Amino acid sequence: MPKKRLSSSVILGEITRSVLDEQFYHCHQGDIAMFLKKAWYVAAWSAEVTPTPVARRICDEPVVLYRDHSGRIAALQDSCCHRGAALSVGRVVERGLQCGYHGLIFGADGICVHIPGQDQIPSTAKVRSYPIVEQDDLAWIWMGPPEEADPGKIVRYPFHGDLKWPYRSQRLRVNADYLLLVDNLMDLTHLGYVHSSTVGGNPLVHVEAKTTTAQTSSGLKLTRRMFNSPPPPTYVKAVGFKGNVDRWQEFKYIAPSTVLQWSGAVDANLEAPNAGPREGGFSLRIFHGITPETSTTCHYFWSAANGYRQDDPEATEQLFEEINVAFAEDKAMIELQQLRLKELGEGALIAIQSDKARLSMRRALNGLLSRETG
Amino acid sequence: MPKKRLSSSVILGEITRSVLDEQFYHCHQGDIAMFLKKAWYVAAWSAEVTPTPVARRICDEPVVLYRDHSGRIAALQDSCCHRGAALSVGRVVERGLQCGYHGLIFGADGICVHIPGQDQIPSTAKVRSYPIVEQDDLAWIWMGPPEEADPGKIVRYPFHGDLKWPYRSQRLRVNADYLLLVDNLMDLTHLGYVHSSTVGGNPLVHVEAKTTTAQTSSGLKLTRRMFNSPPPPTYVKAVGFKGNVDRWQEFKYIAPSTVLQWSGAVDANLEAPNAGPREGGFSLRIFHGITPETSTTCHYFWSAANGYRQDDPEATEQLFEEINVAFAEDKAMIELQQLRLKELGEGALIAIQSDKARLSMRRALNGLLSRETG
Amino acid sequence: MPKKRLSSSVILGEITRSVLDEQFYHCHQGDIAMFLKKAWYVAAWSAEVTPTPVARRICDEPVVLYRDHSGRIAALQDSCCHRGAALSVGRVVERGLQCGYHGLIFGADGICVHIPGQDQIPSTAKVRSYPIVEQDDLAWIWMGPPEEADPGKIVRYPFHGDLKWPYRSQRLRVNADYLLLVDNLMDLTHLGYVHSSTVGGNPLVHVEAKTTTAQTSSGLKLTRRMFNSPPPPTYVKAVGFKGNVDRWQEFKYIAPSTVLQWSGAVDANLEAPNAGPREGGFSLRIFHGITPETSTTCHYFWSAANGYRQDDPEATEQLFEEINVAFAEDKAMIELQQLRLKELGEGALIAIQSDKARLSMRRALNGLLSRETG
Repeated sequence: MPKKRLSSSVILGEITRSVLDEQFYHCHQGDIAMFLKKAWYVAAWSAEVTPTPVARRICDEPVVLYRDHSGRIAALQDSCCHRGAALSVGRVVERGLQCGYHGLIFGADGICVHIPGQDQIPSTAKVRSYPIVEQDDLAWIWMGPPEEADPGKIVRYPFHGDLKWPYRSQRLRVNADYLLLVDNLMDLTHLGYVHSSTVGGNPLVHVEAKTTTAQTSSGLKLTRRMFNSPPPPTYVKAVGFKGNVDRWQEFKYIAPSTVLQWSGAVDANLEAPNAGPREGGFSLRIFHGITPETSTTCHYFWSAANGYRQDDPEATEQLFEEINVAFAEDKAMIELQQLRLKELGEGALIAIQSDKARLSMRRALNGLLSRETG
Repeated sequence: MPKKRLSSSVILGEITRSVLDEQFYHCHQGDIAMFLKKAWYVAAWSAEVTPTPVARRICDEPVVLYRDHSGRIAALQDSCCHRGAALSVGRVVERGLQCGYHGLIFGADGICVHIPGQDQIPSTAKVRSYPIVEQDDLAWIWMGPPEEADPGKIVRYPFHGDLKWPYRSQRLRVNADYLLLVDNLMDLTHLGYVHSSTVGGNPLVHVEAKTTTAQTSSGLKLTRRMFNSPPPPTYVKAVGFKGNVDRWQEFKYIAPSTVLQWSGAVDANLEAPNAGPREGGFSLRIFHGITPETSTTCHYFWSAANGYRQDDPEATEQLFEEINVAFAEDKAMIELQQLRLKELGEGALIAIQSDKARLSMRRALNGLLSRETG
Repeated sequence: MPKKRLSSSVILGEITRSVLDEQFYHCHQGDIAMFLKKAWYVAAWSAEVTPTPVARRICDEPVVLYRDHSGRIAALQDSCCHRGAALSVGRVVERGLQCGYHGLIFGADGICVHIPGQDQIPSTAKVRSYPIVEQDDLAWIWMGPPEEADPGKIVRYPFHGDLKWPYRSQRLRVNADYLLLVDNLMDLTHLGYVHSSTVGGNPLVHVEAKTTTAQTSSGLKLTRRMFNSPPPPTYVKAVGFKGNVDRWQEFKYIAPSTVLQWSGAVDANLEAPNAGPREGGFSLRIFHGITPETSTTCHYFWSAANGYRQDDPEATEQLFEEINVAFAEDKAMIELQQLRLKELGEGALIAIQSDKARLSMRRALNGLLSRETG
């Protein structure tokens, strides 16, 4: 398995960007955010959370993530209860996270354990603590009431721990409502237009794909098959297909904001396309964790694992680069879409046939939202 | 006639700037825009409109401009009726403009002619189409009800097609209400202060100019004569005046946003200054098309044609560079003025004698506005 | 005394930054500013005010500062009464400040003395003039009703004119309410955390300092003594302490926005620490003039003078660089604090023992504010 590398921009300059980003928010204060709070969201890649605190806005709340001296990760409100200093510019000490302004120390539970110069610590000396769990190389945060947090309900993704599936990961900030990103994954006809030169290929193939959508207990499952079709450029680069292929795509949506993807192709088998093996050709798995930052921005955590040449680190690297390009294509399209929707609203928009899975997704989520808000 | 060149920045990076600009608008949403809608505005230079779509905000509406396979230009709302994607990042295909997100195709009339994967096209599948006409090297757009668009009412500027008048053109974005730019052209006493080192010259000359203002059916005409006065630096550079000159300036304002300028000078004729010929010295024609982008920003389309050394492309080039500098001087002054007016309002301002033509212009426009809004 | 140098960024690019800054304000229009108006604020360093006008926002009002032909400084509203042009892009002429747009001239009293092209000057032709006084190398501006301005009430700082105290000065723009900067100086326990590598040193020393706070007629005086403590890095660099020191800090707060600081240390005198001489070791004087720009930004005018090696210009320079670094540390901390306070409010914050002087300061100021607003 190749060494996992986070792009350096993920780590460096967090503070600087934090300031810039927050100035951006101030221009958007009028937006109404409507997030599912009783839910586990990806807060970070595990490797991002170190003893150097990280500021991150999640569901429009300022959060600081850090790893304490015992190696456990923690998430607190990123604002000291004394004078509102950002705890993310403090430092991890023996007893917890120390504010860099006047030295108060907070435990992982948010309770202040030290106030320099005084012995008594008032019971009001505390900040909000968020349940956070490390699992499958991800840090998952619970944004609802802590007493309702059930780690058993966190989405599992065993491939992050499976040596057979080498992967590389990324965090991308997108200036769009996280649901526009989920929408994007639920209407795959966009592949032929947005990604024609990478993972997409011929638009007609996507439009004519046999698609089935099935509701699941936690969201829905979208399956597509494209028989005897030309392989997209990324596929050819990866395994050198010479002729047409039989392709499949499986997307599991788990509300509110995770999508697990398995896609691939094998040489077309004209006699028995449906029975064709799923081994021996091209396949990839993508984890999509899309976390609301504000009502019009989100964090896009994704990983890409290669199901071919799995002993070849260069295959993992090459796939990562291809997906990186493809997701930049999505980002460019969706950020402009966000601006238009914000300006013009959705009242005059129409649904078409390819919106079927997308609308199912929205219905599933809206059901959860109305249950939560009563 | 020299080859017309648009500055590369007009063409390149349109999308990027479009995104940045729109984030800027979101900070200004509170402004009330009050534009004359039943009017033809310059949307672009003809040469800007190619098969690669261009996003342009006009009267605070997002518009996409493109040239179809038949060579005709078209203007649509820059937002797909399906999911709000910006059509300006789509592409021109045989049947029209195709959305780059899910492939819907729209004709120049805004009606959807193709939805991938479905045969039926609902009647609601359409976007707003704007009447647009190419004339005199410009693309003119009508922002009112399409059925009231009368191309016969578009301002004519035959000099753009006259080989005798070589010109170069520009599009400048100015962070100011378009009317502040028109104001600027209606009070020419600014020349001696803002443009003392380019097209202006000695302030006193401008203040003491003999000025007449006449109402016309579509706006007003402003004429100024300055006899036996020192020529401004730009004039000397152009034709090498040795002594004083007799100058004239003619500005025709055609509501809401076009100004046609003819200025020039000949050697001072002390015996008969009024009768002096207008040939043989320095003269220039400037087309000013000032189109509202938002309530506090505008597009400034202008061309400068030389009435001297008309067979010498270097004269055209040199004049263009001089005017470019002069208009950057205006832009700097007016953008700060816009900020002050926005903050402090106009309630405490006073009118002076040189405001006469400016106030006539505002009255003419306000008459049209109140007729339009009833 | 070394030549005083303003950093070039103070002088250069004032206009450009002015435009950028003002666009920033427009995103913050919703803020309610609550400034003491009947007060003298530092508007500029004397050396900043030259015949080239400077735009500066003070207490959220756009002001232009300039020096007239007689050498006197003046402050006017930075908006011409004719068309709202920024007077700061005009120029100083014989009779006053001339608007760069249409040439009106204003005297230091704000009254228009010249309108090009007309003889009569209406009595409404004037802009607001602010009382402004040069004293102790600073330009002090009065933001209240001019008739109540009493220069005798301006804070005196004779050290700026004392050859024995060489100094260097700076103007820093901070994106925070000016009171957060004053707060910062009233709770010196921050030195051990924010400035551990510069002027602070060991946190415990600060927490355990003997601190006395005394009310004064114009604010309060804060005194701290730290005996037999390790000297901070800046002190060691300056005079090469070998062992522990006896330190003192004196801060005089003069409402609303001036703090005069005298700090220093001598070799620890274990027998008679209180009686120890204040000469012969390390000492510095810092002038802090913190002027509101908007409700969430301020100008920080400061100077640092060395009380050691006073004949050595390199000592002055070295101290300046150390303080520059320390104040950049404050700026980073406080700008993030401002964002958090703006977002989350102060309702849930708690006071601790080290807030004593800070709270006295706020009470003193609030007393003045309620007296002013009735």
